[in-house]
Amino acid sequence: MIRVSIIGSGNVAQHLIKAFINCPDVSLEQVFSRSESAVSHLVSPDKITTDYAKLSPVDLYLIAVSDNAIAEVSSQLPFQNQLVAHTSGSVPMQRLDHKNRSGVFYPLQTFSKNKPVDFTTIPICLESQTAADYAILETVANAISKHVFNIDSQQRKALHVAAVFVNNFTNHLYEIGADICQKNNMPFDILKPLIRETAEKITHLSPKEAQTGPAKRNDTQTIAAHLDFLKTEEKARHIYEILTKSILENGKKL
Amino acid sequence: MIRVSIIGSGNVAQHLIKAFINCPDVSLEQVFSRSESAVSHLVSPDKITTDYAKLSPVDLYLIAVSDNAIAEVSSQLPFQNQLVAHTSGSVPMQRLDHKNRSGVFYPLQTFSKNKPVDFTTIPICLESQTAADYAILETVANAISKHVFNIDSQQRKALHVAAVFVNNFTNHLYEIGADICQKNNMPFDILKPLIRETAEKITHLSPKEAQTGPAKRNDTQTIAAHLDFLKTEEKARHIYEILTKSILENGKKL
Repeated sequence: MIRVSIIGSGNVAQHLIKAFINCPDVSLEQVFSRSESAVSHLVSPDKITTDYAKLSPVDLYLIAVSDNAIAEVSSQLPFQNQLVAHTSGSVPMQRLDHKNRSGVFYPLQTFSKNKPVDFTTIPICLESQTAADYAILETVANAISKHVFNIDSQQRKALHVAAVFVNNFTNHLYEIGADICQKNNMPFDILKPLIRETAEKITHLSPKEAQTGPAKRNDTQTIAAHLDFLKTEEKARHIYEILTKSILENGKKL
Repeated sequence: MIRVSIIGSGNVAQHLIKAFINCPDVSLEQVFSRSESAVSHLVSPDKITTDYAKLSPVDLYLIAVSDNAIAEVSSQLPFQNQLVAHTSGSVPMQRLDHKNRSGVFYPLQTFSKNKPVDFTTIPICLESQTAADYAILETVANAISKHVFNIDSQQRKALHVAAVFVNNFTNHLYEIGADICQKNNMPFDILKPLIRETAEKITHLSPKEAQTGPAKRNDTQTIAAHLDFLKTEEKARHIYEILTKSILENGKKL
């Protein structure tokens, strides 16, 4: 059985711990956490260490800490020639200390502290220096997810930017929608089925095919009415203009 | 049993026809369509008419035609003092010809031609001139949906703008994500679980609470790296800048 240890105790670390504990094909050997209490609700005390020197040999060390701490944590590990992978979407593999074999094990999902996730549906993006190390990463990834991808650092950078658009920016548009509802005495709930259907639609249509709305139809009258409606909402109005312009220009390219 | 006739044969008309046919509490009396063939796969020939003069008396006429045609269609109806409602999100109730009693019956959803919808989950926004007419609209709406709202024309205008943000603009962000994937040789599928989770998250958190990402964290280093990555993608870069700025400003307001 393949042996994994996790370094870190944050959101991603905790979701990984839960996934490995429930996985018959992976043995979660140890968890390194600066404070034992951060993960003591998830793993038994004998598996938790607060001392790098007490990490025992495993097939894969996963560093699940904040982006800024990855380089330093990897340099503090008191061993070498082991396989050490980080779990970040935006940090190049090369940022890991070269004394160990480097890898990336990036689960592409937005994790909330208290919300359980079904890891089998989460894409895991892998990168390694050698084919042998890739095989190890792949075995571990396949054990918890059905969607495993070989993604190099340049692609991962692109993916992270794309994720900002479809996740962070999309959520910001939801916030603008919620704001408009609130200012007009309507519950945000009224928009939720539409939000769900919009996300659902692109599972069987490309976003290009799924595009609808005044900008897509070049319905200048409705666009003008909407901009008039937003005349006192400078920020939302500007976003409306920029996105409408972008959709209109896409239409012209066809 | 309450009797309804539908005027129109497009997307919304067809979805309403299907909903009423499967609904035991509403009798779909007739469908007016300029061409019989447009709806002949849905209703029996004796219920289809291509002649306004052949529309028989019912409790509610629903005009489900394109926004620009609503006023004209309502003026062509050869009867008066009947309840006539349109199904549009962006047309004021007053646009209907005043010879009949006016109403609005607006299902807030994005309809695709070939994709079945579960009407019980779709919010229906109602407006009328009198309480008696509201009761009729409400009876029909409750027969097909569990989410019925009293929404006046000014609120409906706001709702339509909000819907553009959470549906049309969100879909455009999906397209930018798909575009980035394609240009970097990755399948768009890799982003779909994240898209689903982003939409799912706001069913139990407000969008403000759900906001994550570099802009939310004021992570200027990652933002700079992303803008650098997008340096040859002028349009996506501009959208990245505007939405990042908006999220950053929201953060400062807290």
